[in-house]
Amino acid sequence: MSMELRPAAETRREIVTFDDGVASRHNDSLVTEEPLEIRVSIAGRSKTVAVTMRTPGADFELAAGFLFGEGVISRRDQVVQISYCKDDDLPADQLYNIVMVELDPSTEPDLRPLDRHFYVTSACGVCGKANLESIAARGAEPLTGGPEVSAGVLSLLPATLGDSQRVFARTGGLHSAGLFEPTGALIAGREDVGRHNALDKLIGWAFLESRLPLAGYIVMVSGRSSYELAQKCVTAGVPVLCSVSAPSSLAVDVADRFGMTLVGFLRGNKMNVYAGAERITS
Amino acid sequence: MSMELRPAAETRREIVTFDDGVASRHNDSLVTEEPLEIRVSIAGRSKTVAVTMRTPGADFELAAGFLFGEGVISRRDQVVQISYCKDDDLPADQLYNIVMVELDPSTEPDLRPLDRHFYVTSACGVCGKANLESIAARGAEPLTGGPEVSAGVLSLLPATLGDSQRVFARTGGLHSAGLFEPTGALIAGREDVGRHNALDKLIGWAFLESRLPLAGYIVMVSGRSSYELAQKCVTAGVPVLCSVSAPSSLAVDVADRFGMTLVGFLRGNKMNVYAGAERITS
Repeated sequence: MSMELRPAAETRREIVTFDDGVASRHNDSLVTEEPLEIRVSIAGRSKTVAVTMRTPGADFELAAGFLFGEGVISRRDQVVQISYCKDDDLPADQLYNIVMVELDPSTEPDLRPLDRHFYVTSACGVCGKANLESIAARGAEPLTGGPEVSAGVLSLLPATLGDSQRVFARTGGLHSAGLFEPTGALIAGREDVGRHNALDKLIGWAFLESRLPLAGYIVMVSGRSSYELAQKCVTAGVPVLCSVSAPSSLAVDVADRFGMTLVGFLRGNKMNVYAGAERITS
Repeated sequence: MSMELRPAAETRREIVTFDDGVASRHNDSLVTEEPLEIRVSIAGRSKTVAVTMRTPGADFELAAGFLFGEGVISRRDQVVQISYCKDDDLPADQLYNIVMVELDPSTEPDLRPLDRHFYVTSACGVCGKANLESIAARGAEPLTGGPEVSAGVLSLLPATLGDSQRVFARTGGLHSAGLFEPTGALIAGREDVGRHNALDKLIGWAFLESRLPLAGYIVMVSGRSSYELAQKCVTAGVPVLCSVSAPSSLAVDVADRFGMTLVGFLRGNKMNVYAGAERITS
């Protein structure tokens, strides 16, 4: 199998640029978007559990983070192996678009969350309240204790995360999620065309490295904080979630309920703290 | 039933703001995020087909646009009625979070697309190619003909759409989608915490007004152009899709394949045309 078939995170295209009415042709880099099918295998039986549009790269971390966020797996030893699916009848350009996650049946992975899905969401009940309960039902504990973080350190996170975004610099088309020490040091960053995927990749990396829960750390995301991002962070034990943009009402509800510090509009020396302000020092 | 229970598009919260290390408390507006459950009813039997996190408002349009985009319905006369679900055992705060779409069985709505879903996507096959075929299989035709649009008119669209975003102005947390004449006149705009929802609301509005296909019009979205947004526009017959940000590789593939003009990074007098540049004049 040739390595050339593996999809890249960037795709080159010829485009037309208009600048003040003047058209010119040149080459441009686009962020690659391709589907990833996630399959789970237990005791020799396999099942497709998700198809998500993603940017190729860190696919195993994405699959692990997705299954962790959904409550299917909670411990590293439940995953026996993750590999690309090599069905003989797969077209060559799809060899890196299907990931198989083999789970150890003796560790009792919980497949029930996967049966709940119809479409588009990790919301389990129809009401926000039911959603908050469902996070607790997955075993998420209220986040207590530190870290204490200074507002000055937080103001440096967006630039640090931005500097680490290699593909974004060339395509302008990516979301990112970064894991930071309370000192502001970047531990790991992941990128994707989808914001949920960027966070799933980051948390999936931590899961596979047996670093969960992420007590004592900060997560910074590039976009807005929605219910789903807040829920994923609570489930991973993240005590501080920051973003450069606005949170939704339900994201704040989740942060309130589980004691997570939620910072938004983190720009320059300004920021808004929507929940858990006691962890932020001047 | 009191109208006060209807969820608003904005939620008020007390927050803490840090500015150069100085903390102060004040009130802020957040964009509301709540789940919407979409049910379909045919000949007295009903089924939940989706739960999506959305900003309350234009819920019937969202439900209609979602079902149209998924290929379940294609003509206005297939929808008998759309209403909020009024189950007796619903908690009061959920009375506006479940929408029932009653379909006319004699018009043969196609429920098969709803059985394909596991999670998170309108992608039907695992490969990009299969996705493009699936759009064609839903009856989408290649987009031919006009309109011709001047680059100068396009440069005015972001400001026009921004001026129409009432909730965004107060929360900073919303995506938007607008429908424009080739002259640059705004016909309709919709907002939502999710970009897919904003476009579903806009297309759902056009569907319910029997204005589809949207031949001859321009759609402008606030975020990036992904596969799903491009697919929804092609299905609705939109010949020109613009955004202020980057498109993904698969969005460009969809535009190429179906003859849709795709404009990105529309900022000031500059823009990139990724497909269908023949519709743009200097």
